[in-house]
Amino acid sequence: MGNLIPKLKEIKGFIFDIDGVMTPGQVLVTEEGHQLRSVNIKDGYAVQHAVKQGYAVAVISGGKSEGMRKRFEGLGVKWIFMAQSHKEEAFYQVCAESGIQPEHFAYMGDDMPDLPVLGLAGLSCCPKDACSDVLDACEYIADSEGGKGCVRELIEKVMKIQQTWYNDDSHRW
Amino acid sequence: MGNLIPKLKEIKGFIFDIDGVMTPGQVLVTEEGHQLRSVNIKDGYAVQHAVKQGYAVAVISGGKSEGMRKRFEGLGVKWIFMAQSHKEEAFYQVCAESGIQPEHFAYMGDDMPDLPVLGLAGLSCCPKDACSDVLDACEYIADSEGGKGCVRELIEKVMKIQQTWYNDDSHRW
Amino acid sequence: MGNLIPKLKEIKGFIFDIDGVMTPGQVLVTEEGHQLRSVNIKDGYAVQHAVKQGYAVAVISGGKSEGMRKRFEGLGVKWIFMAQSHKEEAFYQVCAESGIQPEHFAYMGDDMPDLPVLGLAGLSCCPKDACSDVLDACEYIADSEGGKGCVRELIEKVMKIQQTWYNDDSHRW
Amino acid sequence: MGNLIPKLKEIKGFIFDIDGVMTPGQVLVTEEGHQLRSVNIKDGYAVQHAVKQGYAVAVISGGKSEGMRKRFEGLGVKWIFMAQSHKEEAFYQVCAESGIQPEHFAYMGDDMPDLPVLGLAGLSCCPKDACSDVLDACEYIADSEGGKGCVRELIEKVMKIQQTWYNDDSHRW
Repeated sequence: MGNLIPKLKEIKGFIFDIDGVMTPGQVLVTEEGHQLRSVNIKDGYAVQHAVKQGYAVAVISGGKSEGMRKRFEGLGVKWIFMAQSHKEEAFYQVCAESGIQPEHFAYMGDDMPDLPVLGLAGLSCCPKDACSDVLDACEYIADSEGGKGCVRELIEKVMKIQQTWYNDDSHRW
Repeated sequence: MGNLIPKLKEIKGFIFDIDGVMTPGQVLVTEEGHQLRSVNIKDGYAVQHAVKQGYAVAVISGGKSEGMRKRFEGLGVKWIFMAQSHKEEAFYQVCAESGIQPEHFAYMGDDMPDLPVLGLAGLSCCPKDACSDVLDACEYIADSEGGKGCVRELIEKVMKIQQTWYNDDSHRW
Repeated sequence: MGNLIPKLKEIKGFIFDIDGVMTPGQVLVTEEGHQLRSVNIKDGYAVQHAVKQGYAVAVISGGKSEGMRKRFEGLGVKWIFMAQSHKEEAFYQVCAESGIQPEHFAYMGDDMPDLPVLGLAGLSCCPKDACSDVLDACEYIADSEGGKGCVRELIEKVMKIQQTWYNDDSHRW
Repeated sequence: MGNLIPKLKEIKGFIFDIDGVMTPGQVLVTEEGHQLRSVNIKDGYAVQHAVKQGYAVAVISGGKSEGMRKRFEGLGVKWIFMAQSHKEEAFYQVCAESGIQPEHFAYMGDDMPDLPVLGLAGLSCCPKDACSDVLDACEYIADSEGGKGCVRELIEKVMKIQQTWYNDDSHRW
């Protein structure tokens, strides 16, 4: 992915799908029909670190989960969109409110509903276990699966290339 | 599986076992003895997409779970059978009510109680980690394990061959 | 394991550890400090099938869980021992009450507390991911890990060798 | 790791991070936003065994979980630090209260907040799936991942080398 370095240097913000990206894409279903998701602590470290260093970070999900909202609020994520059937609208709203152009965003998604917005972002990214149509469409395919570190991998790569990864805050959560 | 293409072209409906097919076959047991199952979001996308495109979709389980019932209702699954000790009866009921002949159904199961009904369906399918007797009996063995995408794999393959996968609905949930 | 066939033919009962054998050895901890375990449905099929065909089946655990008790009661397991710091006593009690000699039992365990009782049973068994001392001590090392089918593998192997696996009950739970 | 044997012989205490070391680094998020973690039973056996044989054992986490506190109390862990943004302070407190010098402690961590304290301990350790900066910094990289036995592996190795693993307590929990 040597040819991606120029693009990675230009990233000013990150937008992530939740199911299959922030989570392994498996949800635990309670008897009441609620869905419980699991998230990755190393991903969480990277998200809060990116936020503190000034990157715009957003999540856009087709699903709806109060637990996920609280999780991402706790990490300092400024834009949290749930129950979005058309992810493009949320994407443009993040661009407008952050003042960052679409070409400076990396978007990571794993399934069909992510395809339209993957085409809008400067860098199209997916986990290793994305669906076949998304794998075909993405420039950056992570070495990690959804919920197993794909978010960490992308953020760490961008921040190391931009030399924002190491600083006085690096060892604090 | 090139020789399966003629059969895949004839499929008009899908019937799935739940434990070990829609789920990884592991259940979380609460202190009260309730069983919580986990489902796969990419499988879920395929199920609701197939329903919207007019395929008959059913689940037939030997177990019983209100959470699973709500999950599949939410995906638009029309036939949801729980606590079935004889799956053949439910299978024939789906055929009768859908007006689709048995030979136009794909059935996916993973364990001994699925064997009788696997013999009735037009296409017998199982996940990669089915029990040995089921692996021996099936025409289509998925590359994915139960709960890890075997349902998605089968539905996507059928719909792509029948050219119903891509349309205006593809990017909406 | 060709040389194990004579022993497998003599098995009349099965005794299993719970954590790391019936479960993957990982427990989910609630905020109240309760431990939730997950079990395998294919293991469950084999356990109830063995019980129905007349095998003595027991579980002996060092831990304590009402959820596990209910799970195994539901499968028809007659002897359920929890919170056992000395597993030998429970082992001998099962022998006495079942009228089956120790040499006709297969015992499967995965960790140090199982070592004394592994030495008493006719066939000493463990999952693939048992601790090193147990791996060294066992005659039968399953191809599957704890909670991932090691119980099913052992029971199915014994019942197929003894020609009790297939019968009118095989397709019913 | 033959060259580590002299160091392993000098270990008198163990200090562990929780997320990604004692757990797989994935947390289940409830609708209320609580985080549920899973722990490994074989790790637990080793921890309580080490405590009983006189080793100092501590956990230091950046997170906060009553469930984890109860779990480690139940294993006899004497020092349990939660919500530590600077792990060095807790590390020095354990040294002071145990009367054991830093060079006699093994510390195992998996992410950026562990780096400062990894540099203080006599033996720096991490699971196989630690972040890249931690992998680069550690002398001992376990064969196991976080929550999958890395704690057991380290403790068992130290205790076997020091000939404290086998004794009358070994088969009791």
